[in-house]
Amino acid sequence: MKKRLVYLDNNATTPLDPEVKRVIQESLDLYGNASSMHTPGRNAHKKMEDARSSVARLIHASESEIVFTGCGSESNNAVLNLLFSPEVDLGGRKRFVTSAIEHPSIYELKEMLERRGIEVTLVPVDETGKVRMDAYAQALDSDVALVSIMLANNETGTIQDVGAMTALAKKYGALVHTDAVQAAGKIGIDVRSLGVDYLSLSAHKIYAPKGIGALYVRSGSPFTPFLRGGHQEDGRRAGTYDNLGIMAFGKAAELALEHWEEDAQRMRRLRDMLDLGIREKVGDIHCNGHPEDRLPGTLNVSFYGAEGESILLYLDMEGIAVSTGSACATGSLEPSYVLVNAGLSSDLAHGSIRFSLGRFTTEEDIAYVTAHIPPVIERLRRMSTV
Amino acid sequence: MKKRLVYLDNNATTPLDPEVKRVIQESLDLYGNASSMHTPGRNAHKKMEDARSSVARLIHASESEIVFTGCGSESNNAVLNLLFSPEVDLGGRKRFVTSAIEHPSIYELKEMLERRGIEVTLVPVDETGKVRMDAYAQALDSDVALVSIMLANNETGTIQDVGAMTALAKKYGALVHTDAVQAAGKIGIDVRSLGVDYLSLSAHKIYAPKGIGALYVRSGSPFTPFLRGGHQEDGRRAGTYDNLGIMAFGKAAELALEHWEEDAQRMRRLRDMLDLGIREKVGDIHCNGHPEDRLPGTLNVSFYGAEGESILLYLDMEGIAVSTGSACATGSLEPSYVLVNAGLSSDLAHGSIRFSLGRFTTEEDIAYVTAHIPPVIERLRRMSTV
Repeated sequence: MKKRLVYLDNNATTPLDPEVKRVIQESLDLYGNASSMHTPGRNAHKKMEDARSSVARLIHASESEIVFTGCGSESNNAVLNLLFSPEVDLGGRKRFVTSAIEHPSIYELKEMLERRGIEVTLVPVDETGKVRMDAYAQALDSDVALVSIMLANNETGTIQDVGAMTALAKKYGALVHTDAVQAAGKIGIDVRSLGVDYLSLSAHKIYAPKGIGALYVRSGSPFTPFLRGGHQEDGRRAGTYDNLGIMAFGKAAELALEHWEEDAQRMRRLRDMLDLGIREKVGDIHCNGHPEDRLPGTLNVSFYGAEGESILLYLDMEGIAVSTGSACATGSLEPSYVLVNAGLSSDLAHGSIRFSLGRFTTEEDIAYVTAHIPPVIERLRRMSTV
Repeated sequence: MKKRLVYLDNNATTPLDPEVKRVIQESLDLYGNASSMHTPGRNAHKKMEDARSSVARLIHASESEIVFTGCGSESNNAVLNLLFSPEVDLGGRKRFVTSAIEHPSIYELKEMLERRGIEVTLVPVDETGKVRMDAYAQALDSDVALVSIMLANNETGTIQDVGAMTALAKKYGALVHTDAVQAAGKIGIDVRSLGVDYLSLSAHKIYAPKGIGALYVRSGSPFTPFLRGGHQEDGRRAGTYDNLGIMAFGKAAELALEHWEEDAQRMRRLRDMLDLGIREKVGDIHCNGHPEDRLPGTLNVSFYGAEGESILLYLDMEGIAVSTGSACATGSLEPSYVLVNAGLSSDLAHGSIRFSLGRFTTEEDIAYVTAHIPPVIERLRRMSTV
């Protein structure tokens, strides 16, 4: 089998879509500052507002509800910042309810929030990575200022029932945020039916460049800027408009809206093919995440008796790019908190690999991976028993 | 005279240098997440670290002292954030000393800081826009946690003696930040001789794209992340690395270091030619900023009896792009606080135009502008007396 490059780490980041690439290439000379009053500035501004419409359409929001940010992490941080900003009146509410499997840009802020007088409750998840609804309901009361539950998890792909959770939180008058960075472009998103106040997006997960994100802020929901000191984004986010990034994001959002259903169908088929191949040819594995309510392109597998980082490096030598968990946690020797908090043993969590497919994954890619995994796992299992 | 496009708003933002454009075009397929362990990730990481070296060299810093951010405003905000972060031990110091002409991402944070218990002192400037050294010295005491003085002003181009001001602040044990966004690539910058703890940079002011900035954090100076929840940038700034932006920034920094002296020389000559042309052909003007200690490409002129925004729009119809002040303050009907705080009357501040030249400004551009300004000013002055 001829060596090829197979990129199965699309949950970490995606390659540029050729159409997005074209937008970038065509826009390299559109350099005006979109805040400027002259023609180069106004031209840049017009293109940017078109992009804003496309991003709004992807999640069924209004244009005026979209605030462009520097990345998904900034979007998430900006929402948590509301909890301790004197500019925001939360009626004295001091509690923040979130889950035990959020992205680091939410999860790792627990201690920071606590130092600022916020009481943080991490609602546990079951073995499929679903937030336990009983525990969630119990966590709510009228002192909760904000709830943040991710729409789909980056490591396991498990999808949460954010609509139902929002409805419950609203009974207590809490604000609700959802991190939809990983869900966007893979499942349909409608902010009205979700009912959330805030929703985070990132361009580089939907085949656009890094360095650009967005935050949906529902019309009428409280907000204060995280980046301050400039009138951009209607006073909601300072910093010179990143024309190129915004225009690329707009094109990517347009493509995502147009193609997500066929993309999802194809990814699901290929993902299940990969799943079956690994089960048949390797065996002794454990699949993480929810069997059905899961992103179509995500397959998170724990291999008994093999260590994830070694698997990653051996597969990399075969030209296959996968990950052991969140790229944002790389460098940490700890096993994935997402898996451990879903009840997985530390051993199995250490032996987990995330395969994440994308728009450009082919059947040949999957056949190649299915052929190359068995000898790698076999070799590592032999080594571990020596 | 054949109509042409003349872009004299380089202090707002710059076009891409052709070599930066080439780096972007060549890097569109280098999409790996630089935090990932696999080959696509490691390739992205390697290129990014090369770029970090280039940015460090531009200001004579070490690579490990460079933190990439989303923009200059984020860099500035991140430093001011230290003032009220429980994670940073400032020894109980509660004062912030800055000038009355800082960029909005510093200046407009005054009230926000005061709401968080920080006492903010705005040191006045003289009629050339220079910080008054007597007032500055008086403002310092051992309760000052942080001083922030910009290296060069975005509207007038006036350059401050940050080295001397830092030396003075250090006698009181204060931390010192300088916003070098506008100075970079136009004057030489050496963080060691400046003696500052923090220094802000932005890529799009030196012929690279928007959406990427950097913060120099001197080794050993206190810091806590502004964007949290990811191990990127050695734990100092969360968010997926913006490979493309960082690589473009690196190339731009390399070019800036190589070319700034010849760029400065040429810009100064052309700027003085423009200055002379306006003086001779228009008259009744007032030049803002310091006559000598000023960025080589900046010319800020107040036209008696003509309104800045009208001048801007009439010049725009001739294909000439200039500004009335900071693009970050566009939309505000107030006259420039930078000019008013330098003692300019509100009338004259309203009649001011900033011409900012760049690497690609030509002699023909200047001749074109000098020819087109007189009828515009004449017309507006006639209208205002009717």
